[in-house]
Amino acid sequence: MKDILTAITQRRSVRSFGRKKIAPQDIKKILEAGRWAPSGLNNQPWRFLVIDDDKRRDGVAAFTKYGSVIRRAAAVLIVCMDTADSYNREKDLMALGAAIQNMLLEAQDLGIGSCWLGEILNKKKEVAAFLKLNADLDFLAAVALGYPEGKTAKGCRKPLQQLMIVHEKKDSRC
Amino acid sequence: MKDILTAITQRRSVRSFGRKKIAPQDIKKILEAGRWAPSGLNNQPWRFLVIDDDKRRDGVAAFTKYGSVIRRAAAVLIVCMDTADSYNREKDLMALGAAIQNMLLEAQDLGIGSCWLGEILNKKKEVAAFLKLNADLDFLAAVALGYPEGKTAKGCRKPLQQLMIVHEKKDSRC
Repeated sequence: MKDILTAITQRRSVRSFGRKKIAPQDIKKILEAGRWAPSGLNNQPWRFLVIDDDKRRDGVAAFTKYGSVIRRAAAVLIVCMDTADSYNREKDLMALGAAIQNMLLEAQDLGIGSCWLGEILNKKKEVAAFLKLNADLDFLAAVALGYPEGKTAKGCRKPLQQLMIVHEKKDSRC
Repeated sequence: MKDILTAITQRRSVRSFGRKKIAPQDIKKILEAGRWAPSGLNNQPWRFLVIDDDKRRDGVAAFTKYGSVIRRAAAVLIVCMDTADSYNREKDLMALGAAIQNMLLEAQDLGIGSCWLGEILNKKKEVAAFLKLNADLDFLAAVALGYPEGKTAKGCRKPLQQLMIVHEKKDSRC
């Protein structure tokens, strides 16, 4: 078993999947990971829809230029914010991000690849109408899931130094 | 070593810390976990400031009613969005949430407790001025870090069933 940091740094977006289905108990573990994310005032604004039938999967795929990723997926996780349970949109968006990251990490731990798709939000209204989402549900992410097939792209990040806020310069001579 | 799901479900906010300092290499591992979060277009909008001196720590603590958590912390991680590197605020907020969650999980894996603080954002401008943050930096979270002391509260979440979007009722008789 990997340590957490290794799991985090080795995780990659997977965009090509084999045909193998994901067992329901594994989907449940992935959702469970999302469920245990932290949120402000513990309001848990995330809501999940699991799409594992061809009709809805291909229907959703039509709303993004990355449709091929979705069409190949064994399942697609639709992540929404329940705006009726939202208390601060910015904090709730961060909480959703935390829940999604938990799910990506758990999927990886189960040998399941994932791809967090954001471009599809350009067709937010259309997806919501297609999926008949309740008016309180704000569609905020789609996550394609499936067993990886083929090569996965190498990850790349800015060096840590570039991410650090330099607050004050310390005089190295003193 | 725990599996990821156990790490995720057992993680708790820690609000009381001992006096033990956190080794710089452990702080670096925590930041490294944040650095490897996913983001839309891989834009990596997160920026980090580590506060480990009493003066700034206590100064920041004064801006929140949860100041006692910060005053006890061995270090405080200030997480900002670099608005100059932001391409979509909602997606970038979710990315920051993913980065923060990675850091909470890595801290826990190192035996370090953490508390993600949001109430302090009510004094966002004051904190930014006190820390002399560049105008491009939007302060979005403070994370108190330290070795846990005393009991940690039990976690509680809504049951999974309550989080699932019921899209269509399947007729169980067919």
